[in-house]
Amino acid sequence: MTLIECVPNFSEGRRPEVVDEIVAAIAAVDGVSLLDRQSDPVHNRSVITFAGQDAAVAEGAFRGVAAAARLIDLTAHEGAHPRMGAADVVPFVPLRGEDMPVCVDVAHAVGARVARDLGVPVYFYEDAARRDDRRNLADVREGQFEGLREAIARDADRAPDEGAPAVHPTAGATAVGARAPLIAYNIDLESRDLALAQEIARAIRERDGGLPKVKALGLALDDCVQVSMNLTDFRVTSMQDVFAAVQVHAVQAGVEIRRSEVVGLLPQDALVGLARSTLKAAGFTSAQVLEARILDSLL
Amino acid sequence: MTLIECVPNFSEGRRPEVVDEIVAAIAAVDGVSLLDRQSDPVHNRSVITFAGQDAAVAEGAFRGVAAAARLIDLTAHEGAHPRMGAADVVPFVPLRGEDMPVCVDVAHAVGARVARDLGVPVYFYEDAARRDDRRNLADVREGQFEGLREAIARDADRAPDEGAPAVHPTAGATAVGARAPLIAYNIDLESRDLALAQEIARAIRERDGGLPKVKALGLALDDCVQVSMNLTDFRVTSMQDVFAAVQVHAVQAGVEIRRSEVVGLLPQDALVGLARSTLKAAGFTSAQVLEARILDSLL
Repeated sequence: MTLIECVPNFSEGRRPEVVDEIVAAIAAVDGVSLLDRQSDPVHNRSVITFAGQDAAVAEGAFRGVAAAARLIDLTAHEGAHPRMGAADVVPFVPLRGEDMPVCVDVAHAVGARVARDLGVPVYFYEDAARRDDRRNLADVREGQFEGLREAIARDADRAPDEGAPAVHPTAGATAVGARAPLIAYNIDLESRDLALAQEIARAIRERDGGLPKVKALGLALDDCVQVSMNLTDFRVTSMQDVFAAVQVHAVQAGVEIRRSEVVGLLPQDALVGLARSTLKAAGFTSAQVLEARILDSLL
Repeated sequence: MTLIECVPNFSEGRRPEVVDEIVAAIAAVDGVSLLDRQSDPVHNRSVITFAGQDAAVAEGAFRGVAAAARLIDLTAHEGAHPRMGAADVVPFVPLRGEDMPVCVDVAHAVGARVARDLGVPVYFYEDAARRDDRRNLADVREGQFEGLREAIARDADRAPDEGAPAVHPTAGATAVGARAPLIAYNIDLESRDLALAQEIARAIRERDGGLPKVKALGLALDDCVQVSMNLTDFRVTSMQDVFAAVQVHAVQAGVEIRRSEVVGLLPQDALVGLARSTLKAAGFTSAQVLEARILDSLL
């Protein structure tokens, strides 16, 4: 059995009673630990985070998608965030690096069940993609609900990976994926120079030839500037890697790092990696963390 | 409810069937997670590590002491390690810094029960000590089983904190305590100069005016030398603190740190502290670690 996480995004962020019902459907599964929920009324979207053994998480994800398909009508939905389905994206996330294949299998099984039992077509993305041109979620969701409805009818190349080539009339289509844990990580500089933060962001982000698996933006806060990052695979580029890279650029500009900040949750492995690297403790493993031992003994 | 750890030491390291029976008595308590067991035939002593909610850990500790009192006869015991009881020391350890008062309460309750129900006199030590001169375990255990038997009869000042002033005829006396988690941490140097490792150990250890809550020895390994440490309260002096201190001394001698090593287990908070300090992430908390959230939801 394998401990995994699921972070589905649902296209409802304004009616708390609807989100409550979706959350309740997920949490009703024995063995599911509900970890977080966030609703954004401007995006009209909610992000639920839960975890547990792979079988429990798979069941929770399916029930969440089923509840969303029943409760959300995309023909009446508007919001700032792109979306194509009532359950818009359903990524499965391994907590340990070696468990990605389990998450890919879970994604494929849940996707097939969603298409078969709910009549909602499914696209597999990121590590669960069956076609290279579907790894990137933005490409899969191109045109959103309204555009996809027509694109599927017109273009065989847009046919879903599971289910009939037609979006569900009210629940649209769902992207089911497997991906590494994402760490939202910000570094504040002792400076109010927005151009500097933007320059550092450009220098370190993958898009502009910087560090792999790093997205970065320079932002102005009230009293300083910030390099705001998403680390999409901390095993490739870690917090300590970007901290060191930002520090080099900041020092060259005569500026210090004021502080850094982890937004939301991270897997314990990110801390184990930090210990290995900063303490030259290559042999240190997560099995040496007391709480991890206790958790193992409870599962 | 509070998650705590207990690391009792029993005066038996040669008869595995006796240790098995003690371990089984502890592990039979619902909610106890057995994390580790180590037996040393030279010391003729075993160390059991278990954890769980405070009430379960208290019950497990009592049953372990009861089994040891029944199975171990100190009049027939010899070994390299000092000891005064069948269950020799029973320390309760908080995983979160703020939970020390819970461990002190558990120590006092278990100690009272051991004296009352088993007729084994109890001394409280470290944070559970009721007298300042009993904080130090070595002072409490002065004279060991054989010497204590006579000292109690002779000297009212050696009377136990709980129970009659007479050691149990075969099970002796037990020290019950509360203490911070201990981290066994070693740093290897790119050097075979034992004098250097010993000099660094002296410079950093509390006994010789160095860092508080640090015990250290210089040792020669096969192909390098090592500063071998016990960090008795990582919230006072952390792994990164001693790493930095050893590095300063090593650099002065023109030597590099080869690697460091955590021996056994550490609490997740030690890693959270590492992230706070090395990433300047003062706001980071253990509640942001996914596995900690899952563990909380299971307890």
